[in-house]
Amino acid sequence: MGGDAGPSIVVSALARAVQRHPKVKFILHGDQSALNALLGKRRAKLTSRVTVRHAEAHVRMDEKPSLALRRGRNTSMWRAIESVKSGEAEVVVSAGNTGALMAMSMVQLRVIEGISRPAIAGIWPTKRGQCVVLDIGANVECDADQLVDFAVMGEAFARAVLGIERPTVGLLNVGSEEVKGHDAVKNAAQMLRDTSLPMEFHGFIEGDDIAEGTVDVVVTDGFTGNIALKTAEGTAKLVVSYLRSALKRSIMARLGALLASGALNALRRKLDPRASNGGMFLGLNGVVVKSHGGTDALGFASAIDMAVDMAEAGINKCIIADRAGVGMPGQEAVAS
Amino acid sequence: MGGDAGPSIVVSALARAVQRHPKVKFILHGDQSALNALLGKRRAKLTSRVTVRHAEAHVRMDEKPSLALRRGRNTSMWRAIESVKSGEAEVVVSAGNTGALMAMSMVQLRVIEGISRPAIAGIWPTKRGQCVVLDIGANVECDADQLVDFAVMGEAFARAVLGIERPTVGLLNVGSEEVKGHDAVKNAAQMLRDTSLPMEFHGFIEGDDIAEGTVDVVVTDGFTGNIALKTAEGTAKLVVSYLRSALKRSIMARLGALLASGALNALRRKLDPRASNGGMFLGLNGVVVKSHGGTDALGFASAIDMAVDMAEAGINKCIIADRAGVGMPGQEAVAS
Repeated sequence: MGGDAGPSIVVSALARAVQRHPKVKFILHGDQSALNALLGKRRAKLTSRVTVRHAEAHVRMDEKPSLALRRGRNTSMWRAIESVKSGEAEVVVSAGNTGALMAMSMVQLRVIEGISRPAIAGIWPTKRGQCVVLDIGANVECDADQLVDFAVMGEAFARAVLGIERPTVGLLNVGSEEVKGHDAVKNAAQMLRDTSLPMEFHGFIEGDDIAEGTVDVVVTDGFTGNIALKTAEGTAKLVVSYLRSALKRSIMARLGALLASGALNALRRKLDPRASNGGMFLGLNGVVVKSHGGTDALGFASAIDMAVDMAEAGINKCIIADRAGVGMPGQEAVAS
Repeated sequence: MGGDAGPSIVVSALARAVQRHPKVKFILHGDQSALNALLGKRRAKLTSRVTVRHAEAHVRMDEKPSLALRRGRNTSMWRAIESVKSGEAEVVVSAGNTGALMAMSMVQLRVIEGISRPAIAGIWPTKRGQCVVLDIGANVECDADQLVDFAVMGEAFARAVLGIERPTVGLLNVGSEEVKGHDAVKNAAQMLRDTSLPMEFHGFIEGDDIAEGTVDVVVTDGFTGNIALKTAEGTAKLVVSYLRSALKRSIMARLGALLASGALNALRRKLDPRASNGGMFLGLNGVVVKSHGGTDALGFASAIDMAVDMAEAGINKCIIADRAGVGMPGQEAVAS
């Protein structure tokens, strides 16, 4: 029921997802009559794959997470997470209120043992393909232990979901020398140098290394990660707006743009944020994917794709196994 | 003597700057014979405007600032700053070691009274023109008082140097609601709401607001600011590399690119980082501009332009006058 456009985009996305993932079944949580109306004539065809589960209320987009948590047991968001908790579903996808989704997920699914706090991970396009960046907004302040947890979870994600055999991990910092940065990144770097994980710790990276594709996993606190992500989105838009106005400045330029329109459309598709829509909540006993609230059916369908990939890859088993590989050795190294 | 390419780009930039700024005189600090050789036959023509001042040593690019400070009194960097301290020069421009330049500038020029720490400011292109972002790397951790100082200095810069009558100021955060972010940004926001400065405090902004041009002055800590800046540079490069490969994919695209080459070259010039090269050190009793170490003569000449603009605008008088306008009222408001 969430997202800026409400459930209509979810139902349209569902119609795509049903075709793309023939073995997957879906439970739609929300206002039954609204959802049935949206399903409309598609309903009969989807009946074996889609179940509508009525929920009286829904979490508003601007609602405080603490309030949503108190009054929210009868909301579609709570119920959707509950179906993962009960084992009826494996993943939950929502375009709703991010803070409420995280709070309700933590209460119901609980954090994986050994992980201090969940993080939100995002896929980032690079010159060499893609990388995973975390945290992009769940934790405004992070200590070294949390950053190490993020490295573990990001590495597991890159290996299990992106299929990279031995992912390289970088800590986002203001310089690549060991003396740079604040205590949290310096201590986390020391701990990561001592892990026995199947992870290639690259050391510190800088902001321009993200798009360069220097590493497969970019680890940072949720404050910096969120600002870096949105700064990159804003910059990409700015460059495209410069390009658009440059190509309108003369008849020659317009003609050139017309001839190159196929290439320019391919560029537009490559930069389309809907293709990698979805913040993955990592570190919970259950898979939760947060679609951008302002996305459309195409974007929401991408978030469903990601959720299916994560469930099929068994992301949480990987995190649990990897977390066992860190722990005391690294912490001793910092204490000594 | 600094920068990745050494003094040759400085001397080439000087030849441009002498023409662009007919009333400005220059003192070149460094190895006399090397500089005289580089000046070569230009020397006679420049003799009334350029003085070469010999320094036996120079700070290495990878030298630790603390070491440079201890052993550095005979370096060209120290002497250049000294000439501002003595009043012989008004501004210093260097492409050398950033940390050493900041450390030596703080020791010799001292921080402006009432300002806690200097910051490095950068010019950022936006959809609406440009904005100033600070801190982009001097202070890895910042408290609320420092962020308020940055707002004061950034506002003075936007007014005096960019000529914006009543600059709008935004605090970079992970959301625009008052409850978002960590204590430093929340407390700084409260203090800025209560200032009596000729400043329009816009409140919190997000990463994508920078390129959008939502505000004239973007205030953030040096960790986040540096990472945002480099992430934006990396993203712009990525989009351009996507564009370049898209325009090579077919004969039609190549032909289109050829016809639109004038427009594409204009785009390239617009995105050229050399045009806004230079980190401005704000908060010192003297003007210091740090050129990117990897720049060329064109980029170093831009840094000189910025230094001249700052000196002509009397940036420090503006900061001192503005700083007097904040102070106790804002701090009382936070304490109450």
